[in-house]
Amino acid sequence: MSTEQRAILVIGIGAGDPEHLTLAAVKAISRADVFFIVGKGPGKSALTDLRHSMIEEHARAPYRVVEIDDPSRDRRPMDRSDYTAVVRDWHTRRADLFERLMRDEMTAGETGAFLVWGDPSLYDSTLAILADVESRGTVSAAIEVVPGISSVSSLCARHRIPLNQVGRPVHITPARRLPEVGQNDDGDIVVMLDGGESFTQVDGDDVWIYWGAYLGTPDELLVAGPLREVSGRISELRSAARARHGWIMDTYLLRMASPDPEQP
Amino acid sequence: MSTEQRAILVIGIGAGDPEHLTLAAVKAISRADVFFIVGKGPGKSALTDLRHSMIEEHARAPYRVVEIDDPSRDRRPMDRSDYTAVVRDWHTRRADLFERLMRDEMTAGETGAFLVWGDPSLYDSTLAILADVESRGTVSAAIEVVPGISSVSSLCARHRIPLNQVGRPVHITPARRLPEVGQNDDGDIVVMLDGGESFTQVDGDDVWIYWGAYLGTPDELLVAGPLREVSGRISELRSAARARHGWIMDTYLLRMASPDPEQP
Repeated sequence: MSTEQRAILVIGIGAGDPEHLTLAAVKAISRADVFFIVGKGPGKSALTDLRHSMIEEHARAPYRVVEIDDPSRDRRPMDRSDYTAVVRDWHTRRADLFERLMRDEMTAGETGAFLVWGDPSLYDSTLAILADVESRGTVSAAIEVVPGISSVSSLCARHRIPLNQVGRPVHITPARRLPEVGQNDDGDIVVMLDGGESFTQVDGDDVWIYWGAYLGTPDELLVAGPLREVSGRISELRSAARARHGWIMDTYLLRMASPDPEQP
Repeated sequence: MSTEQRAILVIGIGAGDPEHLTLAAVKAISRADVFFIVGKGPGKSALTDLRHSMIEEHARAPYRVVEIDDPSRDRRPMDRSDYTAVVRDWHTRRADLFERLMRDEMTAGETGAFLVWGDPSLYDSTLAILADVESRGTVSAAIEVVPGISSVSSLCARHRIPLNQVGRPVHITPARRLPEVGQNDDGDIVVMLDGGESFTQVDGDDVWIYWGAYLGTPDELLVAGPLREVSGRISELRSAARARHGWIMDTYLLRMASPDPEQP
C-alpha cells in the first residue's frame, strides 16, 4: 500500500450561475482524479447537470465520475427531537457512503472532489460528514476547502442590496428556527431551507422581504417589497414554479424596519 | 448629451486571494471602461495593490483607473448615537464623492466599476452609497452587482469548518453589537470589524474560537481552539502582526458548545 495520502477537495461551485465558479475552483476541478456526485431529492437532475457541465468544461483528463444516490431522508413534519434523530441517522448513512467512496473509489495518492452547491460552509453537510469519516479512523485524507458564492450572497447581489444594515447584525437561520430568531428584532434575518413558506407566518408591519428562487439560473425568480403586500404573490409564484419544475430552491431576507431611532 | 445610460458594476473580488475572483467577476472587469479605486485607512496600499493587479490582469484596454482617497472618518471610541452620526456624515461625504466620480469621470454609455473587498453585500457600504446617490436624482446609472467570496466563507474554508451547526442559526455581527448578540446562545456568532479584541470580553467555558487574519494572502494567520486557551495567543499574534504590517484585518467565529441536549 502506498504511503501517499488521499486528498479530498470540497469545492464550492456557487448557487446556480456557472460563472460564479472562482478561479480557485476551476483550478481545483482540474486537479481532481475522481469526482463524487451525490444526487439530492427531486431537483437532483438540474443540480447534477450543472456539476457535470462544470466537470466537462474544467476537468483535466483522465478523470472519473462516480455518481451515487444520496441516502434517503424522512422529510415528514416532525418535532425537534425526532428531527434531530432523523438528521443524525441520515448523517451516519451519508458517512458510511463517503467512507466507502474514499476507500473503494480512489487510491492513495489520488485526489477526489465533491462539488458543493453554494458555499460548503453554509447549510451543507459535506464538511461535517467528512469530519465524521475522519473520526472513524478507517480511511484518512487531507481535506482542502474551496469557498463558493453562497445563495445568500447571490440573493443580495441580484436584489442589489446589502445583507446587513449599517452597524447591525444579521441572522441566518433554517426556517424551523425562525420563530425564535424572529423574536429578536436587532438586525435582519435570512431564512434557508424553508419548505413551508414560513414568511406567511411572520407577523409585523414594516417588514420587507427580498425573495429569490433558482438564483443564478435561467429560471430565476425575484420578488421584493413589503411583506404584507407581496407575500401572496410569492406563494403563487412558488406553487406555479414547483409544479412546473417538480422542485424549488429558494431563500429570502426579511429586513426589519429599524426599531432603533438612531437608524435612518 | 447621449441618451445612453451609465452602468456601474459593483464587483466582489474576494477576501484576499486573487484566485477567489469568480469567472463572472473576471468577465465584469473586462467590460469596464473606468475603475474607481477608493483607498481605505492604513491597509490602503495592500488593499489597493491587489485591485491594481487584478485590473492589470483582467481588464481590456483601453481603460482608465481613477484612484481617490476615502473621506476620512472619526474612529475614536464613542457611544452609539455619536457613532451613528459619524457614520451617517461619512456616508454623505462618500456619496458626494461617488456622485462626482459618476458625473465627471465617466460619460453616458460608459461602464464604471468598483472592486469591492470580499462580498459587496457584507459590511461594505458601496451599495448603500450608490443608493444614496441614486436618490439624489443628479446622476443615474444601471447598477449590477457581482457577488464575491466573503471573509466569512474564506475563514470557514481555511479552518475547514461549517459556519453553522446542524439545524441551527448563525449570527454575523459587528463587534460593537457582540454584547447583545452574544446573549442569545442559539447558534454561532461571527464577529466582524473588531478593532478591540472583543473576544477577550467573552465569558464562557465551552466556547471555541476560529480566528483568521489577512485571509487568503501570504500573511494569513489562523488560530482555532477553546477560547480560554487560545485567546492570549491571538492577542499576541494580533499585536505583532499589526506592528509589522501597520494594519490588520481579521474576523472570527465563536462556536458555542451546544446547550441543546439534542445536539451532539
